[in-house]
Amino acid sequence: MSVAETELLVCIKCRQGPENPLGDDRRPGRRLYDRLTEAGAPEGVRLRAVECLQNCDYGCTIALRGGTRWIYVYGNVDEVEAVETLLDGAARYAATADGLIPWRERPDHFKRNCVARIPPANFPDPLEED
Amino acid sequence: MSVAETELLVCIKCRQGPENPLGDDRRPGRRLYDRLTEAGAPEGVRLRAVECLQNCDYGCTIALRGGTRWIYVYGNVDEVEAVETLLDGAARYAATADGLIPWRERPDHFKRNCVARIPPANFPDPLEED
Repeated sequence: MSVAETELLVCIKCRQGPENPLGDDRRPGRRLYDRLTEAGAPEGVRLRAVECLQNCDYGCTIALRGGTRWIYVYGNVDEVEAVETLLDGAARYAATADGLIPWRERPDHFKRNCVARIPPANFPDPLEED
Repeated sequence: MSVAETELLVCIKCRQGPENPLGDDRRPGRRLYDRLTEAGAPEGVRLRAVECLQNCDYGCTIALRGGTRWIYVYGNVDEVEAVETLLDGAARYAATADGLIPWRERPDHFKRNCVARIPPANFPDPLEED
């Protein structure tokens, strides 16, 4: 199965975040996922819950991937404040062919909180330029 | 192009690490890559240099991926001490079907320095268990 469309992966096990004002037992990551679901993913973006993205010290954590794009992982996501930013960033990511949102268009949170990125399978060998 | 075999991706731009005792201008990430190349990747593992894995504050950084396995990203890699650990860990990863090295067999460095992991395309929805 290929990853053709853009996916916004949300770690639903993240424990980092403020006290739950609603008093239920959902973790911050799960509440973030629920908020994103409620807001609705942009066209061409599929929202998916993930068991654990293992960036536990710097959650909440999300990842963007799809097609032949670079995968990007972002941490320190505020489960309340970041919803709009994530949906906007996911739409911008989906609009690229390679996953690289131009710097000036990149959401500030993405600029400062990239945890890691993973190249597509067919990326160029940087040592060939040597 | 699919990623069938296991790949050990090495960020060659990482600046974290000790002073270069050889006095050349290679960055720690590049020196790590060169050491791994010299030591030789285990069977079934392809070593690849990457321009930047964007885990710059916690380098050196590597990633393991391949086939339908979870992708794992590890940081805080010591460019000298970690060579054997990385090659051993890559072999253990390659021996799994899903990328999950059993905890007792997992190298200590992997246990403590996972930066993030990314699920395969076809991972189960954790919310279906709710």
